[in-house]
Amino acid sequence: MTIKIGIMGYGNLGRGIECAIKQNSDLELVAVFSRRDPKTVKILTETAGVYSADEVLKFKDKIDVLILCGGSATDLPVQTPMYAEHFNVVDSFDTHKKIPEHFENVDLSAKKGGHIAVISSGWDPGMFSLNRLYADAVLPTGTSYTFWGKGVSQGHSDAIRRIDGVVDARQYTIPIDAALDAVRSGSDPELTTREKHERECFVVAADGADKKRIENEIKTMPNYFADYNTTVHFISQEELDLNHKGIPHGGFVIRSGKTGWNNEHNHIIEYSLKLDSNPEFTASVITAVSRAAYRMNNDGLTGCKTMFDIAPAYLSPKSAEVLRKELL
Amino acid sequence: MTIKIGIMGYGNLGRGIECAIKQNSDLELVAVFSRRDPKTVKILTETAGVYSADEVLKFKDKIDVLILCGGSATDLPVQTPMYAEHFNVVDSFDTHKKIPEHFENVDLSAKKGGHIAVISSGWDPGMFSLNRLYADAVLPTGTSYTFWGKGVSQGHSDAIRRIDGVVDARQYTIPIDAALDAVRSGSDPELTTREKHERECFVVAADGADKKRIENEIKTMPNYFADYNTTVHFISQEELDLNHKGIPHGGFVIRSGKTGWNNEHNHIIEYSLKLDSNPEFTASVITAVSRAAYRMNNDGLTGCKTMFDIAPAYLSPKSAEVLRKELL
Repeated sequence: MTIKIGIMGYGNLGRGIECAIKQNSDLELVAVFSRRDPKTVKILTETAGVYSADEVLKFKDKIDVLILCGGSATDLPVQTPMYAEHFNVVDSFDTHKKIPEHFENVDLSAKKGGHIAVISSGWDPGMFSLNRLYADAVLPTGTSYTFWGKGVSQGHSDAIRRIDGVVDARQYTIPIDAALDAVRSGSDPELTTREKHERECFVVAADGADKKRIENEIKTMPNYFADYNTTVHFISQEELDLNHKGIPHGGFVIRSGKTGWNNEHNHIIEYSLKLDSNPEFTASVITAVSRAAYRMNNDGLTGCKTMFDIAPAYLSPKSAEVLRKELL
Repeated sequence: MTIKIGIMGYGNLGRGIECAIKQNSDLELVAVFSRRDPKTVKILTETAGVYSADEVLKFKDKIDVLILCGGSATDLPVQTPMYAEHFNVVDSFDTHKKIPEHFENVDLSAKKGGHIAVISSGWDPGMFSLNRLYADAVLPTGTSYTFWGKGVSQGHSDAIRRIDGVVDARQYTIPIDAALDAVRSGSDPELTTREKHERECFVVAADGADKKRIENEIKTMPNYFADYNTTVHFISQEELDLNHKGIPHGGFVIRSGKTGWNNEHNHIIEYSLKLDSNPEFTASVITAVSRAAYRMNNDGLTGCKTMFDIAPAYLSPKSAEVLRKELL
């Protein structure tokens, strides 16, 4: 018997979920739901159907977990509480400041419906959060650092594209090696924003646009670029399409901590990701979490959860015996 | 209210537990139990007592978790099932082949007593196992690699010391950079034992001992050294005491995996530890696990568990709200 999955929203993330399900024989994609006209949405899985988002409640008994692939700004704050009443759901809500509020809303609704709703799954929040928690619990006397990249920041790329005279743009966030090395040395450095990451921008300017002005507008943009050392390269649309169309990302969670009666010994815990496709990796985490959500609900658990609340064994298709034998 | 801890066995690991408890204000060391004459055992914590191992059952109502610091060869197979009937217990059983048998024995006894018994805690088994599981669940199409070192192997050092004419010895296990780089490249290499690790030995020979013979006996020793490139350095006892008395260790868990409809994207997940003190870091993990054991038992759970079965939040002294706010 397979765990039956529905996908709500079919962008990069939804397609990533579809690909991840293909790699897991205990999971089955039943339906993709979209706000677009279903006739215009082409999916890859021959055995699954495409339906209007309005029809999702008809699938209450046909879907074990509904994976919500909407955005954190406007979709998920509405969708996750709404659907958690009717389905086990998983989302990747990543607006850090609003997580407490989102948690409360979703918890109420999931408990009302008797379902599990896992919020904020993915890699950050998600795998990086887990590694921050484990390292913090194991080495309470210490300092944690998170670095992102090298990778494409969609938000920063969008910000550049909004500048007058910019046709297209791609922004990379890059962790600075000297900062990583200082952290790994165990010296517990205090690092400014500028010392941790730099930003590299590839910009296609309109014919005749003032590149000096564009570069200046980028480098002085508050919040996005002003606090960073930023490099701007003007390139052609062809070059951007050829070399900068991927969506790589990754990063590092490092904790430097002390042990011993007088804190005389130092330890470095480092977790890193190097991802060719940010949405597909995020989707792979969410897909494993959907298995956990189904099983936890089967075990009688309900309410809103995060990856902090999921015993790791729930994520794996392997039995407890096999896990102990092969991976312990 | 603090969680009251007892330590059974006061060697390097037991002392590491004592130091770790000092860093956690929600934990309190109540008693250390030893098979030695308690009068001869000096501990660091002024508020805790030292007692004979025979007296431990008198502490049934005074201790929330008993941490077992014996060895996997002969101590834990007897102690963990024996004490799990009377206490929540945590051990660091690391004889991989015998984990299924140990689990069954401990589970029976822990359930009988209504306690939680967490076995095989530490970093390998332990944190490395967790990282193997998470990476395997998230990237099911891929290959996992574990490398150990650079670090001191007690077993290999002992094996050298048993050679005729050897006064003292210290052996380092060293992961080979070329192998690490090949794995990180995503090429999924098949690596032989010899390609993954090398062994470096520092040996103090007795006056007049035949060093050629000693070196040859080390390098050809089956299982321990014959399958590795091994380097032997003869040094003085003074030099060994000066430069090789620490117990550093560490290592790497790396998974290289593919995503995408046609497995077209590659991802590297890497977890690494660089530890100044192997026993103190192991102890720090076990100490966090003891908190989880107590709380899981408080939540009505019983039986034998591994770190695979512990929802991460149980390990942290921070509340669920604080964890979501600060670490998610």
